[in-house]
Amino acid sequence: MVKKSPPDATRRSERSRRAIYDAALALVAEVGYPRTTIEGIAARAGVGKQTIYRWWPSKAEVLLEAFLDLGEQAARQAGHQPHEIPDTGDVAADLKAVLRATVDELLDPRFDAPSRALAAEGLVDERLGREFVARLLEPQLQLYVRRLRAAQRAGQVRPDVDPRIALELFVSPLAQRWLQHTGPISHAYTDTLVDYALYGLAPR
Amino acid sequence: MVKKSPPDATRRSERSRRAIYDAALALVAEVGYPRTTIEGIAARAGVGKQTIYRWWPSKAEVLLEAFLDLGEQAARQAGHQPHEIPDTGDVAADLKAVLRATVDELLDPRFDAPSRALAAEGLVDERLGREFVARLLEPQLQLYVRRLRAAQRAGQVRPDVDPRIALELFVSPLAQRWLQHTGPISHAYTDTLVDYALYGLAPR
Repeated sequence: MVKKSPPDATRRSERSRRAIYDAALALVAEVGYPRTTIEGIAARAGVGKQTIYRWWPSKAEVLLEAFLDLGEQAARQAGHQPHEIPDTGDVAADLKAVLRATVDELLDPRFDAPSRALAAEGLVDERLGREFVARLLEPQLQLYVRRLRAAQRAGQVRPDVDPRIALELFVSPLAQRWLQHTGPISHAYTDTLVDYALYGLAPR
Repeated sequence: MVKKSPPDATRRSERSRRAIYDAALALVAEVGYPRTTIEGIAARAGVGKQTIYRWWPSKAEVLLEAFLDLGEQAARQAGHQPHEIPDTGDVAADLKAVLRATVDELLDPRFDAPSRALAAEGLVDERLGREFVARLLEPQLQLYVRRLRAAQRAGQVRPDVDPRIALELFVSPLAQRWLQHTGPISHAYTDTLVDYALYGLAPR
């Protein structure tokens, strides 16, 4: 009995943690960030609010970790490691593959509604926006920086290109179409962005 | 007396209209779109709410026209026509010039706060978002489509490039940095975007 207690407690914690993440994401999607409260998350997850306060200091922290967890789950479901862009030696193919997976994630309702609610709040609450960009978005963008640097070493990207700006040529169009509904998103669309960015609009 | 009456009335109307635009933009920046009301705009502009209802059917329409007016004013102050991108024969120079003017506009607090409030609402209210994109953003993007088509005719952009996607390589990165605070914006930054987009990241 004593031997079994820690694993059981861990499983219970893990179940509570997952229930809290699910509740936080569902709530922010339904009522928006300002009206999402620790009390509301606790009630929906079926836990006491002290359980939440024991693990996280604020609703912003709960949501941050819920999004990190969501991103990792999506990456695993797509069959790749969450914290790397593959390097097959073909930078065009690798960028297209990761952007196709991103399109699939953006079109998933579990991701779309809460991400949109959080992004909307980030536009008007600059402090929150900057924190979520620094902790959720920028680490993802740095994966592209690393992949583009490897492509520079392999001679597939010009050495004078700044990778942190270069990645925006294919990441930002997808982000804007998704966020602002400025156009449809698809694998064909992101493939085209990668080709235009790598080979340029001007004749070669 | 009779002869002077119509011009005076026109001037009065023009003054009221401008006061209503200013009030609407200031209010949406301060309290957000959901809490902006026709009553609030009227009170702040010093007009009766019937004056507003006589000209516009809803607050969305007032704001839409206020933004169109703001964009036209900004274009005139920047010394160019509001509804065209110049064609000097050098597509890189023309795109850089119009993006530099856009950077100046995005950094102007009169434009920044109300635009951000409206964009935030557009993220969560899809109908409103799509309407404002269709009537405010897309007409601006079509100016780039026209300029890129002229560049294709002049042999400066490849004939197989889709101009509506191509423009996103330099417009969307600027939009995302501005909206989501993902990085600083400057003339040097937009110049770099144009060079990367036209000449590509891969060695030539």
